[in-house]
Amino acid sequence: MQLTLTGEYAIRAMIYLAGSADGSSFKISDVSSANEIPEKFLRKIISQLSSTGLIISQRGIGGGIKLGRPAESITPLEIIEAVEGDMALNKCLIDKDFCSNQRWCTVHTLWCEAQAKLKEILASKSIALLAKESEERKKKVLR
Amino acid sequence: MQLTLTGEYAIRAMIYLAGSADGSSFKISDVSSANEIPEKFLRKIISQLSSTGLIISQRGIGGGIKLGRPAESITPLEIIEAVEGDMALNKCLIDKDFCSNQRWCTVHTLWCEAQAKLKEILASKSIALLAKESEERKKKVLR
Repeated sequence: MQLTLTGEYAIRAMIYLAGSADGSSFKISDVSSANEIPEKFLRKIISQLSSTGLIISQRGIGGGIKLGRPAESITPLEIIEAVEGDMALNKCLIDKDFCSNQRWCTVHTLWCEAQAKLKEILASKSIALLAKESEERKKKVLR
Repeated sequence: MQLTLTGEYAIRAMIYLAGSADGSSFKISDVSSANEIPEKFLRKIISQLSSTGLIISQRGIGGGIKLGRPAESITPLEIIEAVEGDMALNKCLIDKDFCSNQRWCTVHTLWCEAQAKLKEILASKSIALLAKESEERKKKVLR
């Protein structure tokens, strides 16, 4: 029960883009090296993020990638769901035929509660705020 | 980010055993058919649960499997960790070398919070209570 590398890298890349105050574009190769993400893997992830509008990709001279929406309106949860699909901690939360006891199973209820809480936490901060807080903490740590 | 089938089946089997009020043993084949768990798969899971003491397995005539401890002292979290290892929602929570930004990354902090909450919820009820509540709900649903 773990976030995939795709999800992890997608969040890293998006937070990196959120750190650009003036909304300028980044080269994919720069995002790759700055965030320790293999470039080929990153290109696939960017393609997924572009299809949901979270990233805008521009070709040609001066092109690159940037956020498709203000960083203040994007949460880690939205990024994870863009690359991994709807989050479900247990199969019984998305597949009604998975377990025939679902109508009375109280463990199912516990999973519902756990999932709601997890989603709530992963949607509690925007990537703008996370990028800002990380930058401040980094300055303190490296001082 | 989903519980494995091993974890799901382990919980199902343990709750079934918890439903035996007098602590008598069950045949593995009966646990398998009653909980829609392939028997070969179940035998592997029982072997894991036995090695941690959560299940006692007795061979011979009149033998079978039963809980290794009172159901009141066992939670879904303990069962998941017995078959899947220590729960970690993201690799950065168990592998310190996974990400070089960990000292200041605020998403890491968000994952810590999410994981603590998830563990808290999955340890909030014993399988004795979950078995009892499910049984009561089943009676109402099927009435």
